[in-house]
Amino acid sequence: MNTRIETDSIGSLEIPMEAYYGVQTLRAKNNFNITGKPLHATFIKNIALLKKAAAITNRDANFLDSDKAVAIISVCDEIIEGRLHNQFIVDAIQGGAGTSANMNANEVIANRAIELLGYPKGDYSIIHPNDHVNMGQSTNDIIPTAGKLTVLELIDPLLLELNRLHSAFMQKSKEFNTIIKMGRTQLQDAVPMTLGQSFHAYSSVLLRDINRITDVKKEMQTVNIGGTAIGTSINAHPYYLHNITKNINKLINQPLSQSDDLIDATQNLDGFVTVSNSLKTLAVNLSKICNDLRLLSSGPKTGFAEITLPAKQNGSSIMPGKVNPVIPEVVSQVAFHVIGNDVTISMAAEAGQLELNAFEPVIFYNLFESLDSLKGAIETLIDNCILGITANEEHCRDLLESSVGIVTALCPYLGYKKSAEIAKESLTTCIPVKSIVLRDHLIDDKDLELILDPISLANMDKGCGATLRIKKVASL
Amino acid sequence: MNTRIETDSIGSLEIPMEAYYGVQTLRAKNNFNITGKPLHATFIKNIALLKKAAAITNRDANFLDSDKAVAIISVCDEIIEGRLHNQFIVDAIQGGAGTSANMNANEVIANRAIELLGYPKGDYSIIHPNDHVNMGQSTNDIIPTAGKLTVLELIDPLLLELNRLHSAFMQKSKEFNTIIKMGRTQLQDAVPMTLGQSFHAYSSVLLRDINRITDVKKEMQTVNIGGTAIGTSINAHPYYLHNITKNINKLINQPLSQSDDLIDATQNLDGFVTVSNSLKTLAVNLSKICNDLRLLSSGPKTGFAEITLPAKQNGSSIMPGKVNPVIPEVVSQVAFHVIGNDVTISMAAEAGQLELNAFEPVIFYNLFESLDSLKGAIETLIDNCILGITANEEHCRDLLESSVGIVTALCPYLGYKKSAEIAKESLTTCIPVKSIVLRDHLIDDKDLELILDPISLANMDKGCGATLRIKKVASL
Amino acid sequence: MNTRIETDSIGSLEIPMEAYYGVQTLRAKNNFNITGKPLHATFIKNIALLKKAAAITNRDANFLDSDKAVAIISVCDEIIEGRLHNQFIVDAIQGGAGTSANMNANEVIANRAIELLGYPKGDYSIIHPNDHVNMGQSTNDIIPTAGKLTVLELIDPLLLELNRLHSAFMQKSKEFNTIIKMGRTQLQDAVPMTLGQSFHAYSSVLLRDINRITDVKKEMQTVNIGGTAIGTSINAHPYYLHNITKNINKLINQPLSQSDDLIDATQNLDGFVTVSNSLKTLAVNLSKICNDLRLLSSGPKTGFAEITLPAKQNGSSIMPGKVNPVIPEVVSQVAFHVIGNDVTISMAAEAGQLELNAFEPVIFYNLFESLDSLKGAIETLIDNCILGITANEEHCRDLLESSVGIVTALCPYLGYKKSAEIAKESLTTCIPVKSIVLRDHLIDDKDLELILDPISLANMDKGCGATLRIKKVASL
Amino acid sequence: MNTRIETDSIGSLEIPMEAYYGVQTLRAKNNFNITGKPLHATFIKNIALLKKAAAITNRDANFLDSDKAVAIISVCDEIIEGRLHNQFIVDAIQGGAGTSANMNANEVIANRAIELLGYPKGDYSIIHPNDHVNMGQSTNDIIPTAGKLTVLELIDPLLLELNRLHSAFMQKSKEFNTIIKMGRTQLQDAVPMTLGQSFHAYSSVLLRDINRITDVKKEMQTVNIGGTAIGTSINAHPYYLHNITKNINKLINQPLSQSDDLIDATQNLDGFVTVSNSLKTLAVNLSKICNDLRLLSSGPKTGFAEITLPAKQNGSSIMPGKVNPVIPEVVSQVAFHVIGNDVTISMAAEAGQLELNAFEPVIFYNLFESLDSLKGAIETLIDNCILGITANEEHCRDLLESSVGIVTALCPYLGYKKSAEIAKESLTTCIPVKSIVLRDHLIDDKDLELILDPISLANMDKGCGATLRIKKVASL
Repeated sequence: MNTRIETDSIGSLEIPMEAYYGVQTLRAKNNFNITGKPLHATFIKNIALLKKAAAITNRDANFLDSDKAVAIISVCDEIIEGRLHNQFIVDAIQGGAGTSANMNANEVIANRAIELLGYPKGDYSIIHPNDHVNMGQSTNDIIPTAGKLTVLELIDPLLLELNRLHSAFMQKSKEFNTIIKMGRTQLQDAVPMTLGQSFHAYSSVLLRDINRITDVKKEMQTVNIGGTAIGTSINAHPYYLHNITKNINKLINQPLSQSDDLIDATQNLDGFVTVSNSLKTLAVNLSKICNDLRLLSSGPKTGFAEITLPAKQNGSSIMPGKVNPVIPEVVSQVAFHVIGNDVTISMAAEAGQLELNAFEPVIFYNLFESLDSLKGAIETLIDNCILGITANEEHCRDLLESSVGIVTALCPYLGYKKSAEIAKESLTTCIPVKSIVLRDHLIDDKDLELILDPISLANMDKGCGATLRIKKVASL
Repeated sequence: MNTRIETDSIGSLEIPMEAYYGVQTLRAKNNFNITGKPLHATFIKNIALLKKAAAITNRDANFLDSDKAVAIISVCDEIIEGRLHNQFIVDAIQGGAGTSANMNANEVIANRAIELLGYPKGDYSIIHPNDHVNMGQSTNDIIPTAGKLTVLELIDPLLLELNRLHSAFMQKSKEFNTIIKMGRTQLQDAVPMTLGQSFHAYSSVLLRDINRITDVKKEMQTVNIGGTAIGTSINAHPYYLHNITKNINKLINQPLSQSDDLIDATQNLDGFVTVSNSLKTLAVNLSKICNDLRLLSSGPKTGFAEITLPAKQNGSSIMPGKVNPVIPEVVSQVAFHVIGNDVTISMAAEAGQLELNAFEPVIFYNLFESLDSLKGAIETLIDNCILGITANEEHCRDLLESSVGIVTALCPYLGYKKSAEIAKESLTTCIPVKSIVLRDHLIDDKDLELILDPISLANMDKGCGATLRIKKVASL
Repeated sequence: MNTRIETDSIGSLEIPMEAYYGVQTLRAKNNFNITGKPLHATFIKNIALLKKAAAITNRDANFLDSDKAVAIISVCDEIIEGRLHNQFIVDAIQGGAGTSANMNANEVIANRAIELLGYPKGDYSIIHPNDHVNMGQSTNDIIPTAGKLTVLELIDPLLLELNRLHSAFMQKSKEFNTIIKMGRTQLQDAVPMTLGQSFHAYSSVLLRDINRITDVKKEMQTVNIGGTAIGTSINAHPYYLHNITKNINKLINQPLSQSDDLIDATQNLDGFVTVSNSLKTLAVNLSKICNDLRLLSSGPKTGFAEITLPAKQNGSSIMPGKVNPVIPEVVSQVAFHVIGNDVTISMAAEAGQLELNAFEPVIFYNLFESLDSLKGAIETLIDNCILGITANEEHCRDLLESSVGIVTALCPYLGYKKSAEIAKESLTTCIPVKSIVLRDHLIDDKDLELILDPISLANMDKGCGATLRIKKVASL
Repeated sequence: MNTRIETDSIGSLEIPMEAYYGVQTLRAKNNFNITGKPLHATFIKNIALLKKAAAITNRDANFLDSDKAVAIISVCDEIIEGRLHNQFIVDAIQGGAGTSANMNANEVIANRAIELLGYPKGDYSIIHPNDHVNMGQSTNDIIPTAGKLTVLELIDPLLLELNRLHSAFMQKSKEFNTIIKMGRTQLQDAVPMTLGQSFHAYSSVLLRDINRITDVKKEMQTVNIGGTAIGTSINAHPYYLHNITKNINKLINQPLSQSDDLIDATQNLDGFVTVSNSLKTLAVNLSKICNDLRLLSSGPKTGFAEITLPAKQNGSSIMPGKVNPVIPEVVSQVAFHVIGNDVTISMAAEAGQLELNAFEPVIFYNLFESLDSLKGAIETLIDNCILGITANEEHCRDLLESSVGIVTALCPYLGYKKSAEIAKESLTTCIPVKSIVLRDHLIDDKDLELILDPISLANMDKGCGATLRIKKVASL
């Protein structure tokens, strides 16, 4: 292998001749063999984007030579387009608050820019990774800012899927609007409702998640770029300090603003915790919904069987004909993963000390994975599950009619105690509730029909039926 | 012991004659011997408040006899004032989504109301726990609504303390405004800053927490009261359904609104998760701050010793004269507790099934304790720690001057590589950085003074010094 | 209020005359208003027990005057018997690694001993809280050792209940031995089994928990008493150092041993994490079992309804006749609580620094509550649920016979693909699997009977039937 | 692209001609786009190993044709050697308890075996994925068993590194044996110790982790292979059932045993939780140690600076000469990751229902990553940190001598109160403790020398010095 020698404060190392990364990257590669997984591609892209904005701003400040700036910007564009990513060789989880990721970028950009300018890689007198590519910057403002840009970029497709999921549930809610079924509390027969109401509830809870996640974007829009090492902006040119955020916004069309307290913004990672919180809450809700879908579709013969999920793959390697709710299952798994990731993120954020939190890499690793895996899970949930769900209308009605839960509707007329006696008798003897009421002349036939009308019980007539149902309660 | 016999669907039990609770409460007491701790007093109060609002509304609907209503309301007022709480004997953690808590309230109110009306306790023909006290209600709307009211009531004093803490840090920030010290990243000497900046950062991060917690109150202001058993409002009188929230608001001066989707609002507890999230994030930030305070006050002789915390108690049973940072320590412990509680709350919220989440009691137990213990922790943090902190100004300056971190300021003039060599020489030989620069005629004396001016390095002159510092960079 | 004045390094405070606690306790009371909950009674008792053992050992070393020792021992016995506990007024969660708890004990013991010797409370020249009661001790060895004794004391009744639960499941397993039912994987109909097998599985998993929790006791049996402040045994008399553990063992009949590395044993709390781990695993298993019980008893009409849980209380304040699985529900809530507590305990253990972990109080608060609440939950699970479970044998068989899962047993004869076709036809047409096989002359009648014999399918004949079932597979 | 058509119960799909996977794999690929990461290579290998053992056993049972068996075994060997892994295209996190992973293996093995036998891929009449490759097996026994084998295989290199780490700490403990320094509790100056004692404590706590992790291997050695779908061994030949575990052991030289209760072993994943517990506890301890290392090496000028970590890379992109504790930092990040993973694993294990836990994939994903990343973290911790640590002996002694912590040693002679006064005076005036004692004639010069001898205070003379130190205490 052809190599070149590069030297830093620690000493010298042989670098493969074709490599764009340099000595500091190679040291980091050797120091951190943790996950075997690289930095997230969107994160690499956003580091390059910040380097580009920095080069533009430093050039405009007459702080960075124009030809150097042009070369640097050109390489950043290559990285933004997806090239050179294989030169980012450091592990996703690394010590040092992301210095290795930042230096990996600085070295790749410097060497490729040197090459573009016609010099041999490693000749840092032409373009220096620290002095020029990293000019006015520090790991401690570049990395958290790139992290925030990455979260913003990953949130949008997640929101898109969430909105699609919300619509899918709304659509199913309308489709199942008139399917009467038994509601269950604590898995025990409760009172009637419609299947449409169930699916509407799923859409309603997701709407809150959509609002929360949309809202949490603002936590990512205040950045500490310009703060450099600890937020005092040491070595940042005043022009750069006051224009870098504006220049980033021009590149990405985001309303980023620079923090009013750059020292706070450099040392505290609570914004990422807040994003993770919103994902965790979404995870809680998604898993609850998916558990419901698995319950409602349990069977086909020995379960609830009120709905049927679309068959997406054979369910078993041994049991022929078995179809399993594999899509809801994978969603719940992602939910557990996101909830665990949230603990990691919270612990890492708590562990910051004084002017810096050195534990950003593990936060990003977990947060980006939460975002990506939620998006993937929701996408398959919509397309491979929700949209294909069918209702077993007849079975829903059979179950409702076999149950005694409608006895609740008698309480305003007969009182809790008498109603409980009727329920007990009906359950023991299998004589329907209606028959007992009529047998004992407790309520007359016509009234009873009105009182026990399932559509009314499900409040599908928006409370009008309810008035009727309870007109006689004064007699209690 | 004098007793009376009470009977429910399960059978009969002897109840102590003087007890206001009844048979269902006693069953619950026997079924759940879990924490040995009662329901939170504010929660008891809020259940009573809802029972009062329900009685008013049902009376206005001509659904509940006026004399019954008067008696019920009167008892509710007693409970709201703090009386009869010893009659709430069920364990804080209980099965059944809080049915036992609700029935404990229903029975206590019924029996005390019966007594007020001149009848013997247990004569439920006068006032029935289910038919009258619980009229138009279900555990499934009463308990989550009372939980939300309780959270709202406990959040306000927490916010009060948080605002006081924010002010305390601001005050200290001003007091320490001109104390120059070394900033540290990754616990290693970094670049200069002021102690005032450190405390300002603490105030800034707390401001975000204040905003988040203020914001999260809205999650608690949408309630499911009126939804009864599963959100279909079965057995709720239409008048009641449409007026109960308004009547609650009259009693407590809150802007509660009834959920547009009562079925969703009955089965999903994500609002509580969201509150817990905001507390968890606060916990993360508080613990980070307290860790910093313990680091900065470490010593008195072998630590950082930049600040001194007020001595609030002897630190050791064996080591005389030792004073420990006990207040920050208790805050971190509360933070760990809150973070653990958040996991419990998330798991319990995830475990909801179909039309109900039966696991509210453990959510409330944890969430109320998070709120209370955070309030207590912050209160002592302000009064017994922050306000009494003093700075060791001379020691701060000595440490700064002994360190080589100011070498960073030379980078724009000398480049990263040369600066690193100077740093290395200074650390090895203990020759100050300034002396090396002057010895080697790298920068002239007057410029060097400007470049290394600590006030300017700390950016206390708002970037003006920075311009000066970096004027010669083009020469690089 | 009559008061006396007490003074420590911080200054003077008025103490109520009748109080046995002193100035340091009162300071701690004022500093820590966190949970409002006192130290665990068993923990108080064990601190007293250690103080007693210390007094005995110091006396035997001729290090503590005999009359002082006698008085101290006498007070310790009072506390061990449950007296004076109301004098322990410090909050369960406190800063300072438990110094406040230790000094609370030292002061109560000193003052009560002074009183016994005929002197006025507060005259520490007679018995000094630090010099005499705390002789040879430090908070840093007393508190973790008392914590371990407390865990050991709370584990035993938990194990007792766990063994009872194991027996209850074994008993039910035998009772349900011949009840054939459909097994379900992923909530979908799978293959036949017996209800007895289900309950046997519950007993088997608990046996592992019993073994793990029994095993983990050894983590608590190595103590750091004698290490004093940091494990170097400063101020401990050599005789005391080498005899204190032996003397404790005499008092409590435990095989405690002193750690070989007292410095490690003083600073690391991983033993408590390990105990919590074992409880967390138990929680995971208990919650899974209870979820199963709720699923299997879901209904009575619209659920699985294979078993019926005993009715222990009315299930609903609004729905008459409803009986809910409140006991399994409370167990799952305790499980969530224990899992959250484990996160708190892990974080607190991780936060130790150098020679001490100051966060023991929050660890103890959570760990003791995990132990107590698990015990309470299991006790009610046995007595109010498991022992009263009945099987709905006929319904189990009906469900089995309606399902097509037995088709799996045909695979060795007909292959997966053909079997899948049969399953599909049977599900679509409701023609039983058997009928299709016979109609198409795939397997002869007699063989089919053997192949599909449910007892054999459930492997209740220990593999003998299996031989028969698959004898013809070579033909595939 | 050349394709072939494959058909299953769901329908037909085009498969790339060169692909060894089949229709079920492709469906799974389309259904689960979650992490973008494949199955762990060791896990793939172990599935193949089980398929090999199954083929051997079924052949020996005369249940599987010898030529089919030979072909299957041959393909399994290819996979075990690392070939064909690119044919495993399903996502690591997937629904369905691993059915997709199992079918991916079944299809790859079948098609490659078909090819070896000279037939075209997809002609499952030659070798059928379900009937032959999966003979006597189910996802529900193959996947958990392969998971356990994988954990066992990944634990060993972790234990190797842990033992190396233990040795490294022992070695450093000896090296630093006589370096006297100040111990710190709660970050405040406490009492003297040696640096060797600090490092010995690190070795001691790790020994417990080594024992725990060694011990936990037994949890993985009981497997459910042979239980097939739900543990009733349906479709497993009795010979296979009784010999499969033995045959696996022959292949891998492990003492696996088949569970006595295969139904329990199929539905419960508590064994994986227990492994994760032991890793979590290790993570807690590692992070505590690494936090200590960062504290002790804080500086170089404004921190504790008692030790120096080896410089492994430039610490900063902006601050020249800065060297950061990047190795301990990455270890703590891995620790946070492992602790978060443990929550995910616990939740997934809790979520099992009835005869199966469908959430194994997310458990494996997290558990394997915990194992791998801990191994990588410890490896770098040893080689790039611990072995290169140097002590700053002089600085340690200077700090010790400047502090007043030795005052504790005076307590047995002067009492706590008097000692506290001396401490206070010394701290305020900077008059050394010794000088005050001598000035006030409290203890004579010679005795004081003995009492305050740091080697003796650190208990390095094994308690002999202690006897001396406290000889005069009776005078107190």
